[in-house]
Amino acid sequence: MKISVGDYLLKRLNEIGVDHVFGVPGDYNLSFLDQIETNKDISWVGACNELNASYAADGYARHKGAGALVTTFGVGELSASNGIAGSYAEYVPVVNIVGMPSTASQDRKDLLHHTLGEGNFHVFVDMFSKFTTTQTVLNPFNAVREIDRVLEECMAKKRPVYIGIPADIAHTQVDDNYTPLRMGHFHSDRDMIQEAVNRTSKCIFDAEKPVILVDMCALRHEEMETLIINLIETTGIPCAALPMGKGLLNETSPYYLGMYYGDYGTPGVKERVEASDCVISFGSVFSDFNTGGFTSTPARNYHIEIHSDHVRLRHSLYQQVDYREFISELSESLGTYRYDEEVKRKSTNVEFVPREGKIVQERLWTRMESFFKPNSTIIGEAGTSLFGVLNTTFPEHTKFVCQPLWASIGYTVGALLGSSVADKTRENILFIGDGSFQLTAQAISTMVRNKLCPIIFLLNNDGYTIERLIHGPERKYNDIQMWDYTSFAKSFGKEIFSAKVSTETELEEVLKSLDKHSNKLRFVEIKMEKMDAPQSLVEIGKLSAKVNQY
Amino acid sequence: MKISVGDYLLKRLNEIGVDHVFGVPGDYNLSFLDQIETNKDISWVGACNELNASYAADGYARHKGAGALVTTFGVGELSASNGIAGSYAEYVPVVNIVGMPSTASQDRKDLLHHTLGEGNFHVFVDMFSKFTTTQTVLNPFNAVREIDRVLEECMAKKRPVYIGIPADIAHTQVDDNYTPLRMGHFHSDRDMIQEAVNRTSKCIFDAEKPVILVDMCALRHEEMETLIINLIETTGIPCAALPMGKGLLNETSPYYLGMYYGDYGTPGVKERVEASDCVISFGSVFSDFNTGGFTSTPARNYHIEIHSDHVRLRHSLYQQVDYREFISELSESLGTYRYDEEVKRKSTNVEFVPREGKIVQERLWTRMESFFKPNSTIIGEAGTSLFGVLNTTFPEHTKFVCQPLWASIGYTVGALLGSSVADKTRENILFIGDGSFQLTAQAISTMVRNKLCPIIFLLNNDGYTIERLIHGPERKYNDIQMWDYTSFAKSFGKEIFSAKVSTETELEEVLKSLDKHSNKLRFVEIKMEKMDAPQSLVEIGKLSAKVNQY
Repeated sequence: MKISVGDYLLKRLNEIGVDHVFGVPGDYNLSFLDQIETNKDISWVGACNELNASYAADGYARHKGAGALVTTFGVGELSASNGIAGSYAEYVPVVNIVGMPSTASQDRKDLLHHTLGEGNFHVFVDMFSKFTTTQTVLNPFNAVREIDRVLEECMAKKRPVYIGIPADIAHTQVDDNYTPLRMGHFHSDRDMIQEAVNRTSKCIFDAEKPVILVDMCALRHEEMETLIINLIETTGIPCAALPMGKGLLNETSPYYLGMYYGDYGTPGVKERVEASDCVISFGSVFSDFNTGGFTSTPARNYHIEIHSDHVRLRHSLYQQVDYREFISELSESLGTYRYDEEVKRKSTNVEFVPREGKIVQERLWTRMESFFKPNSTIIGEAGTSLFGVLNTTFPEHTKFVCQPLWASIGYTVGALLGSSVADKTRENILFIGDGSFQLTAQAISTMVRNKLCPIIFLLNNDGYTIERLIHGPERKYNDIQMWDYTSFAKSFGKEIFSAKVSTETELEEVLKSLDKHSNKLRFVEIKMEKMDAPQSLVEIGKLSAKVNQY
Repeated sequence: MKISVGDYLLKRLNEIGVDHVFGVPGDYNLSFLDQIETNKDISWVGACNELNASYAADGYARHKGAGALVTTFGVGELSASNGIAGSYAEYVPVVNIVGMPSTASQDRKDLLHHTLGEGNFHVFVDMFSKFTTTQTVLNPFNAVREIDRVLEECMAKKRPVYIGIPADIAHTQVDDNYTPLRMGHFHSDRDMIQEAVNRTSKCIFDAEKPVILVDMCALRHEEMETLIINLIETTGIPCAALPMGKGLLNETSPYYLGMYYGDYGTPGVKERVEASDCVISFGSVFSDFNTGGFTSTPARNYHIEIHSDHVRLRHSLYQQVDYREFISELSESLGTYRYDEEVKRKSTNVEFVPREGKIVQERLWTRMESFFKPNSTIIGEAGTSLFGVLNTTFPEHTKFVCQPLWASIGYTVGALLGSSVADKTRENILFIGDGSFQLTAQAISTMVRNKLCPIIFLLNNDGYTIERLIHGPERKYNDIQMWDYTSFAKSFGKEIFSAKVSTETELEEVLKSLDKHSNKLRFVEIKMEKMDAPQSLVEIGKLSAKVNQY
């Protein structure tokens, strides 16, 4: 059977879990957009600009396991490049589709708009090779094979891929392919995996204080999440999350220790992890932020790192080990092994009594903890918000979206758009500061247009507070224009609930009323002091300040 | 004498004409921002996001002859990449300065935020090599030499350059250099230039219908502008502008023919140019847009192309010819040569009588023609606005800013910020459609913050009209959210005059009142019909539609 290249791509996108595609129209992608608009399984979400669209595709992929973005050649794709690079850094599988000038124009080297004027139509694919895991430009002869190859790699590596479609190719007919995509499974070498499993289980059997850590990459592999949860439940080994792994573990579980975040994590967790004689980590990334400024230092001699396609056991590297096989066989090998330790955590059932006066960070996050409901998605912008959210304990089945490695300010407004589209049954709650908000604020327009109903808490502390804590607290470059944020939000459409609060009692009243407006986007501006920040951020700011000292 | 690397860079930037630097703070550039904030000759203009900042630096450079942008590593620079690539395509000299992680962190390959997590700190410099003319990463040993080399190349090539400053390097002391920069002059080969000049003047002497064309690159070289104007005045050869060269010629001059824009230019100009037996073009770019969809076709056999560093005379190429020498010697060689032709143009003194009813494109631009005052800067977004502005005749000393080759929608809001900062004595007038406006609208905040007083005409035609004309007039992907644009604009600060008009009489009243509010940013929303567009755009849309046909 024949199928057009564009329809084939959409069919395969749907197969990897994509039912919404984000982007901005441009004349080189319009013929493909026709195919999206008429497709019954996939819907188009037009964003105000490409950066927001790329953030949305990323936020969407973090929920659905894959996302897709369509931009136009040159101008559109470059505007999205920051978002795609973020997806690459943080292992988020986004299919980056770019509408290109027609094959004939490319062959003639026409001097076209949206080009650098040099007749080179490959320059942007080349550029994107730096932060997509593989790239292709479709033609009628390679389209089916290349779409399959590139999407399979996207799903295996959990990283963005690049697909260029010249304007004339989308509607070209090709032979359909009905074989399902191979979704990233591979078979590990039997002897290698046997040795790795045996040595790991021996370490666990011999250990006096084993501990499990979960982090970013574990969140990217849905099956890994399930296997980890199962391993914890059956073995009773206590567990902690690195910041980028927050949201994977059930924080109300009796095995949950808290946040492993160097000097800034849950009290006692650093000591417990670093005294352990068997640290089993899943998908861990020891970046500056994720380790509290490199203050997380588990001993290499006792560390077993499990990644999606390899295991590092103390000083040995086992390459090409599939985590599914490894974790399953490890569980089997552990048999009836059971570890027993009473985990003591602070109670999360403290009743919050609002008091008179301004809202301060220290109390805001305590209040928010009891505001969160199970099955929500919480999004924290890299700034005071992220540090604040990390201090809270989540109810069950909370998803957490943040971008601490790439840390592009403004990311979360777009990501909120994506996560709200991905799962309309969840309550999506964003915390963001005013400085970050100003970069990407028009994403609210797209949320209103698509009748999405998230909650946005804008922490208005009059400028770039995180930068002030790192350097130049009194510098003018950390000041920004004070917007009338609630008027701003309401200018995008009538269907918005907005409120501005500056005291705890005002906040309390608004929080209580939010459920009544759950059929609308809810925008709450919280006025805060310029230099008020979670204590962990204050401390980490000091560390970073040293780097900037002169 | 010793000077810090950062201060040395600022000194050199000031030497090439930069007194404002645009950008967004990020922790890797804060130490350099301290130096900007304390510098007496250069001021910091913090934008809401990096894309807007890069557009602003471009708009600024188009007025001042050079611009500068400061972003932070990875996230910031990628967000600005679309703007820098546009400056590259359209030959705008912008110095793209990026704050990088400290030398020590780079040497240790620290796993830092704003990186791809792979320990490669050179990946973005490499990427920018595709659309900056040269690149450097500063260290204490190369800083003085490299800053000089890179800025000299920026000014010679009129294209963006990339300067990376690791956070610790900005304050490192180096030996100052007092030798002035060499600003792009070079000496042409005497025999070569002699032959080129002689052959050119012979062509002119022999010609029955000579004509001069001016285009984009002529606008980028201030001295070229002066030499061309002088050549026209002394020889009396009639002249026309390609769209990207609009604003260079005095459109009230007796030698001005009009717009050379293929089938869509001033009536009669295509015929006059293409019947010429001696077409002398300056800095011409025969791109799709600039030629009215490749309908400008001057005969190669009669065409003499003068570019900044080479001359193409019919079929011969003279490389490494400095335009200053060439044009001066050509003028000399022409001696008392004088060409006589009566140029007939439509009168621009038609009185506009507003009538009842809606505002339509056909009449809007006639009205605007008499609204424009000498010494203004007019900015037209690539869309109905650009096509409309091209139909108007400018008063004397009008500068025109547009981006038809790169054609990134949203560009002009940022460019308006830059041009308003560059010259506060000019009236800066922007025309932009609602679709484009939504990409970069928060640049208004930065204009208000910096007390700039441009006029913004928002042509609200409910979506991407230019795309509708090319493809999918009824498609949903060309629809956008209807904002309350005047409330939106006013949410950025109280010092804004805003108005919304939908009839000619309403428009008339507002136009007459604008001068009274010249100490404020003035925002005028003009409601228009969805499919109403300048006739030239309708026709060109049909041409483009053919490319997208399937």
